[in-house]
Amino acid sequence: MQIAILLYPDLTALDAIGPYEVLGRLPGVEVVFTAKEAGPVRTDLGSLTMTVDRPLGEVTRPDVLLVPGGPGTAAQLADQEVLAWVRSVDRTTRWTTSVCSGSLLLAAAGLLTGRRATSHWAALDGLARLGAQPVGDERMVPDGKYLTAAGVSAGLDMALRLAGSIAGDRTAEAVQLVLEYDPQPPYRAGSIATAPAGLADLLRANGLVVPALD
Amino acid sequence: MQIAILLYPDLTALDAIGPYEVLGRLPGVEVVFTAKEAGPVRTDLGSLTMTVDRPLGEVTRPDVLLVPGGPGTAAQLADQEVLAWVRSVDRTTRWTTSVCSGSLLLAAAGLLTGRRATSHWAALDGLARLGAQPVGDERMVPDGKYLTAAGVSAGLDMALRLAGSIAGDRTAEAVQLVLEYDPQPPYRAGSIATAPAGLADLLRANGLVVPALD
Repeated sequence: MQIAILLYPDLTALDAIGPYEVLGRLPGVEVVFTAKEAGPVRTDLGSLTMTVDRPLGEVTRPDVLLVPGGPGTAAQLADQEVLAWVRSVDRTTRWTTSVCSGSLLLAAAGLLTGRRATSHWAALDGLARLGAQPVGDERMVPDGKYLTAAGVSAGLDMALRLAGSIAGDRTAEAVQLVLEYDPQPPYRAGSIATAPAGLADLLRANGLVVPALD
Repeated sequence: MQIAILLYPDLTALDAIGPYEVLGRLPGVEVVFTAKEAGPVRTDLGSLTMTVDRPLGEVTRPDVLLVPGGPGTAAQLADQEVLAWVRSVDRTTRWTTSVCSGSLLLAAAGLLTGRRATSHWAALDGLARLGAQPVGDERMVPDGKYLTAAGVSAGLDMALRLAGSIAGDRTAEAVQLVLEYDPQPPYRAGSIATAPAGLADLLRANGLVVPALD
């Protein structure tokens, strides 16, 4: 089974690496990172470059497509070459998936029209404008073969669920144990519902760049 | 403030990228990936290459050192150039930290002798052999300026705690909300205590490679 993860400039690294770390451990799975051109892709925070081994034209029939998000998503929404590739490979995928604002790209390609889907909490409005039915209070949203996850770290949970669908629950549990994925965040600010009042609005106004608050 | 993340061949990508995604969002923080040589570093699953911008010799006084783990750690334990660099930068760090088997490298450098520390559940024995006092049932273990995390995904929790120490709790909460880190794993197999009986032994015997179990 081949799983293709689409990269592009200014994506958020964890959107891609979380699912990669889960899905890449499944027996019989090949994960391929692909982008318009082979070579380095700089991620959003600037320090990290990931390398693409195979351009889009060499990845034509993945079983699973995964589209990560990030500040760079916006530029991709108007890139007809990327959108055409997404539409093309979607015709034969078993699952078409996204993390964070990656769902905007699926929607811009016309794949989520009328479907329930989620995204990063700050991107849900954009998802509605692109014709999907945004769901804001679920960690991941399945609709047919489409599986969209909430922001950044939600890709880990989504990938584990997908791992269960691909390889069965016991194998997915083994991956979880290898990754020691027993989360114990020291704060409870990970969702709009639990974060301190006003924090989401402040971050939205700041383009999701974290200011000094203490 | 500069945070240095040490890379080496066959590290586990998420060990490095989880903390990077948290710490790299703090105001006034620069994250630098460093390794013996600048250029590409292939991670353990084979599909992903990360690029190092600056070799060890150009990173001499980071405020924070973070050492990720992975199957490649073993080869580093005998690399005197790497161990000498770790010892050298540790003399002036505010925090010296690790994720997963990265703590073995800190221990091999002599920094954890007699200290409480943790590691991936499969690496705790090795930590004891290298002179540390392994702690197996905590997600992260502080001892003075040393902060060690459990396996792979524990780096996210450790980095959030470190973010609070560096920038204050409110700023760390803002990072958590940007990453929408509200974990909801679909299984409860993420620790030795919660995983199905026998699964850890099976994985240990298989070198942590996940076999088909369903």
